[in-house]
Amino acid sequence: MSLSEFQLIQHYFSTATAARPDVLLGIGDDCALLRVPAGFDLAVSMDSLVEGRHFLRDADPEALGHKALAVNLSDLAAMGAEPAWVTLALTLPAADEDWLRRFMAGFSALAAEHRLQLIGGDTTRGPLSITIQVHGFVTTAGALRRGGGRPGDRLFVSGTLGEAALALRQRREAGRAAPELAARMDRPIPQVGLGRLLTGFASAAIDLSDGLVGDLGHLCEASGTGARLELASLPLAPAVALACAEGDWRLPLAGGDDYELLFSVPTDKVPAMLAAVVADGHRVQEIGCLVATPGITLAYPDGRESEDTPDGFDHFRD
Amino acid sequence: MSLSEFQLIQHYFSTATAARPDVLLGIGDDCALLRVPAGFDLAVSMDSLVEGRHFLRDADPEALGHKALAVNLSDLAAMGAEPAWVTLALTLPAADEDWLRRFMAGFSALAAEHRLQLIGGDTTRGPLSITIQVHGFVTTAGALRRGGGRPGDRLFVSGTLGEAALALRQRREAGRAAPELAARMDRPIPQVGLGRLLTGFASAAIDLSDGLVGDLGHLCEASGTGARLELASLPLAPAVALACAEGDWRLPLAGGDDYELLFSVPTDKVPAMLAAVVADGHRVQEIGCLVATPGITLAYPDGRESEDTPDGFDHFRD
Repeated sequence: MSLSEFQLIQHYFSTATAARPDVLLGIGDDCALLRVPAGFDLAVSMDSLVEGRHFLRDADPEALGHKALAVNLSDLAAMGAEPAWVTLALTLPAADEDWLRRFMAGFSALAAEHRLQLIGGDTTRGPLSITIQVHGFVTTAGALRRGGGRPGDRLFVSGTLGEAALALRQRREAGRAAPELAARMDRPIPQVGLGRLLTGFASAAIDLSDGLVGDLGHLCEASGTGARLELASLPLAPAVALACAEGDWRLPLAGGDDYELLFSVPTDKVPAMLAAVVADGHRVQEIGCLVATPGITLAYPDGRESEDTPDGFDHFRD
Repeated sequence: MSLSEFQLIQHYFSTATAARPDVLLGIGDDCALLRVPAGFDLAVSMDSLVEGRHFLRDADPEALGHKALAVNLSDLAAMGAEPAWVTLALTLPAADEDWLRRFMAGFSALAAEHRLQLIGGDTTRGPLSITIQVHGFVTTAGALRRGGGRPGDRLFVSGTLGEAALALRQRREAGRAAPELAARMDRPIPQVGLGRLLTGFASAAIDLSDGLVGDLGHLCEASGTGARLELASLPLAPAVALACAEGDWRLPLAGGDDYELLFSVPTDKVPAMLAAVVADGHRVQEIGCLVATPGITLAYPDGRESEDTPDGFDHFRD
């Protein structure tokens, strides 16, 4: 990019987020210099959003700035980590100041909520894509890994499932989605506070990006377990519950983009976990349990049961 | 991508680099978990390479894997940091196994040289682009910042300048470049060892990616100084020296892509720095000094002098 475009982007980048004391050197040198507090380890995750794959060309830039950061923060949440720093690689077809201003507004507002400082990145000209890396603090003993689940642990999920997938379906079929559903798709809320709270209770955790059955499959595979899902217990918004009542369970089971947390808790820790979760104002729902036998059993409300495997969830997809 | 493509990439990613003891959890969970050694801070840098902007579609994948990592390692070198971890976001038009194998071969060979472990990343389908973040260790007192230069400090540069730019010019004009020049453009060698050695001597440092005058401008701006460059002292390969002898100084002054280190050293530390550099087998050349007056003075071999400013180097570009 030309010097003036570069300066424009530098301006938006360097003023995007507030300064943290653990950032010894931020944007503007060859590297950022960062200090991890004593007693903590670093959790990092990187995700890309690519135009035409994860969003459409006419996507609202502010929502995109929010979502690109939110999906990364959701990975920190699933680890129980405290967000600290973020890097942003933006590839843009042109230095469109209005687009950039709105994108950074969405990005910065969510960053501010989580005291996240933008410490570096890169901007290049090319087809629109966004790659973000988030960095957070966690104690190694407290980190919520995928592989700590044991047979008998209870399975919980936060929030409600399937609304983002329903928004996508409505957009495909009718060109637009109901506003409350669109918000779930365009402005997911990463469950950072819940994740940090769960470090004292959960045996394993994962965030729901691919869909419940697929992500539960990842958790089971890492834990060396199977799972039983009680579909009557799934937390569903009315519009999603309606589709399920008509026999179509794809939205909550395979819809993806929920960015809620799925986690397992040893039975003896469940009461204390629930007390802490309620006291902190979160909403979680027990939806099943881990079992010793590999594979996922879906227990339907009508008493019917079906077996699934981590590799077999694709037939649920739209 | 489909599950099998995803598994293919996971295979290449998870076997790409050797395990380090400071990686508590690598690829495969929601986050990687990393431990910075006591007494050290973390240096991070992120760079993107985009097809059509930084490389052509028919670029050799192995060279591309090398270069994408090398330009990032060059930023760690410029900070004097010890490389540790790397993340890789790959956007690919298709899951081309041959391309991926060759790309990862170039990437992994350079990573192994620097004991760098691949700890995470993302793969998506879309126009080819590569975003890499490198992470290294450095003491805050020892870090080579851009802004520590003072008037009177001597200016040095490693290696030779302008060969990558000459390779680009030959490719544009003749379709191909001389092999030794092409190697400078396609397989830059990040000066990691030299950078770490300089932490005891240099007052400021930057790596040469934009071209000597532009990057010197960044160093001067951060240091609050100007600089005087003795062009007769520039370390030049014969083919570049020939162009300069004919009056065209653009290759070494504005060519870019050299990935050598430019650094300033207080006069009283120069003898010890040179002794250490020679003992470690590096090649550096004194090319001028920092001065109190802003702007860059170019002193030509024929006695002519011209003034330049950090913002004024664009007219040097091809």
